[in-house]
Amino acid sequence: MSNLRAKFMEVYSVLKSELINDPAFEFTDVSRQWIERMLDYNVPGGKLNRGLSVVDSFKLLKEGRELTDEEVFQSCALGWCIEWLQAYFLVLDDIMDGSHTRRGQPCWFRQPKIGMIAANDGIILRNHIPRILKNHFRVMPYYVDLLDLFNEVEFQTAHGQMIDLITTHEGEKDLSKYSLEIHRRIVQYKTAYYSFYLPVACALVMAGKNVESHADVKNILIEMGTYFQVQDDYLDCFGDPEVIGKVGTDIQDFKCSWMVVKALELSNEEQKKLLHENYGKDDQECIAKVKELYNVLDLQGVFTEYESSSYDKLTKSIEAHPSKAVQAVLKSFLAKIYKRQK
Amino acid sequence: MSNLRAKFMEVYSVLKSELINDPAFEFTDVSRQWIERMLDYNVPGGKLNRGLSVVDSFKLLKEGRELTDEEVFQSCALGWCIEWLQAYFLVLDDIMDGSHTRRGQPCWFRQPKIGMIAANDGIILRNHIPRILKNHFRVMPYYVDLLDLFNEVEFQTAHGQMIDLITTHEGEKDLSKYSLEIHRRIVQYKTAYYSFYLPVACALVMAGKNVESHADVKNILIEMGTYFQVQDDYLDCFGDPEVIGKVGTDIQDFKCSWMVVKALELSNEEQKKLLHENYGKDDQECIAKVKELYNVLDLQGVFTEYESSSYDKLTKSIEAHPSKAVQAVLKSFLAKIYKRQK
Ligand SMILES: [Mg+2]
Ligand SMILES: [Mg+2]
Ligand SMILES: [Mg+2]
Ligand SMILES: [Mg+2]
Ligand SMILES: [Mg+2]
Ligand SMILES: [Mg+2]
Repeated sequence: MSNLRAKFMEVYSVLKSELINDPAFEFTDVSRQWIERMLDYNVPGGKLNRGLSVVDSFKLLKEGRELTDEEVFQSCALGWCIEWLQAYFLVLDDIMDGSHTRRGQPCWFRQPKIGMIAANDGIILRNHIPRILKNHFRVMPYYVDLLDLFNEVEFQTAHGQMIDLITTHEGEKDLSKYSLEIHRRIVQYKTAYYSFYLPVACALVMAGKNVESHADVKNILIEMGTYFQVQDDYLDCFGDPEVIGKVGTDIQDFKCSWMVVKALELSNEEQKKLLHENYGKDDQECIAKVKELYNVLDLQGVFTEYESSSYDKLTKSIEAHPSKAVQAVLKSFLAKIYKRQK
Repeated sequence: MSNLRAKFMEVYSVLKSELINDPAFEFTDVSRQWIERMLDYNVPGGKLNRGLSVVDSFKLLKEGRELTDEEVFQSCALGWCIEWLQAYFLVLDDIMDGSHTRRGQPCWFRQPKIGMIAANDGIILRNHIPRILKNHFRVMPYYVDLLDLFNEVEFQTAHGQMIDLITTHEGEKDLSKYSLEIHRRIVQYKTAYYSFYLPVACALVMAGKNVESHADVKNILIEMGTYFQVQDDYLDCFGDPEVIGKVGTDIQDFKCSWMVVKALELSNEEQKKLLHENYGKDDQECIAKVKELYNVLDLQGVFTEYESSSYDKLTKSIEAHPSKAVQAVLKSFLAKIYKRQK
């Protein structure tokens, strides 16, 4: 595993060097240094789970057969495309949200002399993906499928971001826009497609499978991605800050979190009124009132129930899949996230 | 011509309707209306020269043979992809530049309740392009060439924008960064590829030609695009505001304009000092001093000479091309821009 991570980082260096020497553009020294710094700051600093899982999934699909050097390189390169995609979304999301920190450091656009140039840097990150694909997959029979796949998933993510922005940020804070249905849609499109479906879809394409015919796999991964985000929302409120590495702020940030939509669903009129009055205010007293209501409604118990019923449902769906190799991929994903504390 | 424009607008309506009903996303009414309004505001409001020239060029390549209905629709659709690409760049460029108006109306991000959501709208515009291509070209043998073409040109444009931003906006105003060489690079990558090369490349691809082997065509179009931007820079200062429809602001905006790089090139030490002291200041007296220097250096004469030598050089290159049909395409482009007053 630590071995894989080292290999993965090695591939990062190769890809970066190709990108900052791309013959499609005449780099100046200043612009080459700009891109290199921007990449190092924004691309490899996360947990790399999405990227590494392309390699893991591809190995499982090969059912124990040793990968060739080329296959290792290619699955790493696809993994990096997902990490690049994520970096692109995060750089722009931080601008749109006016955020301050990301992965324990200031957001890229907050760095001195960057500012709005960060928006174009986000665009450049996005543009690196088809260059990586062209450099390393142009001759493969599935090249066009990779292009289509990345285009479709980006389209879905951008639309998920759109309903998040419209629901959460547009105009006045209005809790009546929030519901389980809108939460499901935001999570599914903004997070689940690129974080859960895309890594496995990349591995399937590389293994020569037709992704379009794997609708069941897609549905299972979207379910899993949704479950993952519900955990994220739960941990933001009830997780241990020591363990998750940050203090949650979803309540004061007026987030369309699973917690608040569940609370709205279970509340009587009086409790709803309390939520409307206190949710989304950066005031310790208001936050405490919301958390107290979450306790009164036993959201911890509701979550535990949701968690185990999700798990059962997902396990059943996975075991119904005809291919043992695909089952192994999906089970390994599920095992990584079930009952996670961070 | 007016007939073509009507047909072109008809195709816009078809494309829009497909995009706001794309099955890859579950639209809510609110999000569908959002996109429709955003498209109508940002996509069709320009002169549509880039888009229409795909159709014109394709016709010329067919050497008089009547186009089928499908060919008309497809060449219009490709034309619209370029207009979409431009809308995407403009929406984001206005955010990055903090601009106020665009095409005679407030910039999209300045509209009430839009703000930073406009950055994601830009992303969505960009994501519409591969959807249009997939909907209408997936079965064509040149589908993958179209994807590669749009990806490469977007990559180049984003990098042109990057050197523009780094040169013009980063840190303090520093005129010593400006030169003919950096101006050429900004113009070539930020404007010429997508405005001049891309429309013709689209037409060539549709006509079954291999674009990669048309390096000479690419070079000619890049030359023409550069000449077009030099005109733009010239007209910003010496054009008739009544005719071009706006009062130029390149001097106070500290733009890396052909005018100022030429002036720097032709200035003695004292005149350079004057430029350093007065360029980029929003003050009528400073602007007047810069314009006076432009007159002293006879930039109008220098421009006239540049214009006619560009024209001669371009005409010679065009006439050296082996294909009469390709010559016709290039000549029609040149005729449209030579000695333009707006
Ligand atoms: Mg955010
Ligand atoms: Mg956000
Ligand atoms: Mg969270
Ligand atoms: Mg601008
Ligand atoms: Mg600009
Ligand atoms: Mg101009």
